[in-house]
Amino acid sequence: MTNLTLALDAMGGDNGPQVSVPASLQALRFNPNLKIILVGDQTKISPYLTDTKDIQSRFTVIHTDEVVTMTDRPAQALRNRKNSSMRKVIELVRDGGADACLSAGNTGALMAISKVLLKTLPGIDRPALIGRLPTSSNKPVYVLDLGANVSCDSETLFQFAVMGSVVCEVVEQNKSPTVSLLNVGIEEIKGNDQVQQAGLLLQESPQINYSGFIEGHEIYSGSSDVIVCDGFVGNITLKTSEGIAKFLIARLKKGFTKGIIVRFLSKLVTPHIESVFNQMNPDHYNGASLVGLRGVVVKSHGNADKVAFTNAINLAVTEAQRRLPELISERLKSIL
Amino acid sequence: MTNLTLALDAMGGDNGPQVSVPASLQALRFNPNLKIILVGDQTKISPYLTDTKDIQSRFTVIHTDEVVTMTDRPAQALRNRKNSSMRKVIELVRDGGADACLSAGNTGALMAISKVLLKTLPGIDRPALIGRLPTSSNKPVYVLDLGANVSCDSETLFQFAVMGSVVCEVVEQNKSPTVSLLNVGIEEIKGNDQVQQAGLLLQESPQINYSGFIEGHEIYSGSSDVIVCDGFVGNITLKTSEGIAKFLIARLKKGFTKGIIVRFLSKLVTPHIESVFNQMNPDHYNGASLVGLRGVVVKSHGNADKVAFTNAINLAVTEAQRRLPELISERLKSIL
Repeated sequence: MTNLTLALDAMGGDNGPQVSVPASLQALRFNPNLKIILVGDQTKISPYLTDTKDIQSRFTVIHTDEVVTMTDRPAQALRNRKNSSMRKVIELVRDGGADACLSAGNTGALMAISKVLLKTLPGIDRPALIGRLPTSSNKPVYVLDLGANVSCDSETLFQFAVMGSVVCEVVEQNKSPTVSLLNVGIEEIKGNDQVQQAGLLLQESPQINYSGFIEGHEIYSGSSDVIVCDGFVGNITLKTSEGIAKFLIARLKKGFTKGIIVRFLSKLVTPHIESVFNQMNPDHYNGASLVGLRGVVVKSHGNADKVAFTNAINLAVTEAQRRLPELISERLKSIL
Repeated sequence: MTNLTLALDAMGGDNGPQVSVPASLQALRFNPNLKIILVGDQTKISPYLTDTKDIQSRFTVIHTDEVVTMTDRPAQALRNRKNSSMRKVIELVRDGGADACLSAGNTGALMAISKVLLKTLPGIDRPALIGRLPTSSNKPVYVLDLGANVSCDSETLFQFAVMGSVVCEVVEQNKSPTVSLLNVGIEEIKGNDQVQQAGLLLQESPQINYSGFIEGHEIYSGSSDVIVCDGFVGNITLKTSEGIAKFLIARLKKGFTKGIIVRFLSKLVTPHIESVFNQMNPDHYNGASLVGLRGVVVKSHGNADKVAFTNAINLAVTEAQRRLPELISERLKSIL
């Protein structure tokens, strides 16, 4: 692996430097070719920079005491947070000081600042947040948009479909990924105008392996490689999935308190059940990418712990290594 | 219980009379005060009407050979399916021949025909499909709209909130149910225009116990009694929940095939796990109601089996007994 530099917004997310800094140190130790630029409040970052002699030469801290808050509107963040840690990491990617950036902060702001500073790829109007989810069939499904755009017209959904197809092709080495539109039914008459019109656009695009509409219960079946929806639906769908997984494990554990035999058995079996649920744990799939930009921008869950944050760092590294934006751009040229 | 008559679309859904007729006979045997009018193709219904001497006086068959198909657009169904089994059951409610009707057919058509034939309650523009889902806190959550309206403006979402609040109040005897709007974040700036505007309308309504936005992962937490969204989001959210439950049980079972000890334990524990998952089984929560109409209209899952269909029948009976439309109408008068 060639040397890579990651610019990391140390302040974003619910936990800030308490999680982002230890995760960075772990990633640096794991990956000897990685350099990390930690951007944020030096006084809040420093307490976590202990015992770092072995990796001292591979990280730097850029101080800024301004942050984008969770309640900043995207336009406000763009206009008023010129010295924020989030903006700085994106500027580093734009100016060539870093190969990728990562933030656990405000998604709308990350999207708005990235779009203005990095610009979208030719043919793409709006970046989308794409995530990789597990399925029953042991191959992942790529879902976009997971929350960067709360409303999308049919042309935007079409562009998301093209980007999703290219990402799956590039990352999974899947030559002809199937692409579906998330809808309330599989019949042509179903859905709102945006989805129906996007379906027509995709039917007319021989370079996309469009397989029609898909319903919510099929997301995790593995029947489609790429699923497209607007960011409002995508965000709620993803979070609902997390909620139901938690709900079921709570019910399972509660059920196991009934009866002595079941209680005894549960002690033996519970670790196994938890390991299964962990495969579904969003932390293990942490990190969604803003695709459609001229640079790698990865978004971590706001409430990521160290393990989850490290996974998001790994995702940013992988995308930078594979030069994902350039690959998407090349494929887009031939499709659009 | 007073005598009640249910008009049942025997042809709707994936399984038609094969499921709807046996479920009807079971419901009749269970409930001596119930009468059922089976509407549909006599030749397809008859084969399932065996050994019915004990309940012969409490069901009738009204023959019609026209059906609403799953690919009929709502407007087509309304215009062209004048003799359909779906329309007939709604006409029976309108004309006083039945106290409630039930169909497992095309949701959009059921909504359109019900709206035109039964009319909406004063102050309500569009009926909504409301369902009752389980939560971690052992009280149900009412979610609407589950798919009757694929796009909704803020005023419609507001009306749904009012109806949901009244349904929860009436059915659960909850004097001040908390009502939330499903959104991509809890901060005021989050979401699309419709949700934000609906939030403002609800803030200004002291008679609704509005508790703000709620995210997908909180749906099953029990933190809100009523959750409001448009039918596109609601339908996908509900089906995603079903999908993830199936996904997890498949993973659990697969995991249990690894290792002799785990395999042995799994035989003892699997029935317990399945019983827990069954609490979440959509069949046990089958039946969603079209609320906001001047009559009881219940929609069963299209792929309901006999148990699930019987649950939908029970729901229709309960709502007719409690005279839900009249109660909603009374409460609406004081709120709107």
